[in-house]
Amino acid sequence: MRICRAKHKNEVFYGVIEGDSVLRIAGGPFDKPEYEGSIYSLSDVRLLAPCEPSKIVAVGKNYSAHAAEMNEGQPEEPLLFIKPGTSVIGSGDTVIYPAISKRVDYEGELGIVIGKKCRYVKEKEFASVVLGYTCLNDVTARDIQKSVSQWTRGKGFDTFCPLGPWIETDIEPGRLNIETRLNKETRQSSNTSYMTHSPGKLIAYISRTMTLLPGDVIATGTPEGIGPMQIGDIVEVEIEGIGTLVNKITSEIMPG
Amino acid sequence: MRICRAKHKNEVFYGVIEGDSVLRIAGGPFDKPEYEGSIYSLSDVRLLAPCEPSKIVAVGKNYSAHAAEMNEGQPEEPLLFIKPGTSVIGSGDTVIYPAISKRVDYEGELGIVIGKKCRYVKEKEFASVVLGYTCLNDVTARDIQKSVSQWTRGKGFDTFCPLGPWIETDIEPGRLNIETRLNKETRQSSNTSYMTHSPGKLIAYISRTMTLLPGDVIATGTPEGIGPMQIGDIVEVEIEGIGTLVNKITSEIMPG
Repeated sequence: MRICRAKHKNEVFYGVIEGDSVLRIAGGPFDKPEYEGSIYSLSDVRLLAPCEPSKIVAVGKNYSAHAAEMNEGQPEEPLLFIKPGTSVIGSGDTVIYPAISKRVDYEGELGIVIGKKCRYVKEKEFASVVLGYTCLNDVTARDIQKSVSQWTRGKGFDTFCPLGPWIETDIEPGRLNIETRLNKETRQSSNTSYMTHSPGKLIAYISRTMTLLPGDVIATGTPEGIGPMQIGDIVEVEIEGIGTLVNKITSEIMPG
Repeated sequence: MRICRAKHKNEVFYGVIEGDSVLRIAGGPFDKPEYEGSIYSLSDVRLLAPCEPSKIVAVGKNYSAHAAEMNEGQPEEPLLFIKPGTSVIGSGDTVIYPAISKRVDYEGELGIVIGKKCRYVKEKEFASVVLGYTCLNDVTARDIQKSVSQWTRGKGFDTFCPLGPWIETDIEPGRLNIETRLNKETRQSSNTSYMTHSPGKLIAYISRTMTLLPGDVIATGTPEGIGPMQIGDIVEVEIEGIGTLVNKITSEIMPG
């Protein structure tokens, strides 16, 4: 099942995508969908980020080939950081290139969308707390990230967490091709089977520390091939069995 | 004005504290309070964390004497990290000492509660986006924090962000005594005037990166004197003109 969040005229709602149609559901995406009756053509709605995370728990250096290209060792345990909910945008929205940065990178990733409030999840039971999977771009102002010890600022700008285009619920996350393209040119091409810490291990590890809430997202780390984007570029993250997240880079317009 | 969030029987609501009474308000704390008519005795309600932040943006090493005691230099710009909303508890709630840590520290801090959605706030105009101020304990599993480059995990456990007991709206944040006591013994004693980056500068700096939402909290950094707590300890953070945040440390009970 493909779950989306969509806007039609001034109304925002969750829906299920079937073919070229969006079947509007009553309430949130976390229960068995109650179809509300309205059906829209996919081309008539604007897709929004498919959930509204209270937090994005992101994992650093979870593909060894990426850790190597950064000239960094790979931590034994998952390395966690948080991207704020205010960084989330949907597919089709624009990433704003901060005027104070000189290098803004794409990082294509598999995003895990949590379906129920949970703590102390056992690795083998991870699927019971997952709503589904989506594409995620862990956009990073690399110069700012490298200038201070904590990554929050370099990875926390508004628009730095494109998410979407929807949540795919019927998929196994362990062996999916993942590709990032910049202006149609392939820049990252890997498979989720190369993750050091699997989705199940990540959920067990993170929920050992903190409660995960419905709609929270885990950004599972990026493979090798990261690189800079320029204003005007189009960046795409495509994951097998999910779809393609597309965003354009625009310049920051400062107020006043 | 003192704004609280309170629970009476099974009802949760915001209120204004006057003397020993809680005057219940309709809706949230961010508009001019509309008194709803119900008045409770302060002793009859349980105070909860006074707001429900979507994020806590915390500032590292913002008092030079604390940076010195950590044998670390002080960064020129504010050093930001995020504590998740799931780490928040109120005064009177218990901090859970994670079984996987061998050292859990208190860090008494002034908390700024944001009153309106904002970005690109000018330093001089910071007061216009602030609802008020509260006491905050940036509880830290020091061994875990030091074992990895990113502080998220060591500072992000559930219950690691005591907040309260209420929000004081009629106060200037620039020159307030701040004291942390462990089992009634003073461990931190400083004044907010020793902050390297003032509340106005922090709000300008953070909102240059990300949107702040009503109820979001800025943890302004801890002064010198940090140290470990043990299971059974009582920790208090008192700030002049606000009040005292009190929490007990308890052991973690693992499921199953």
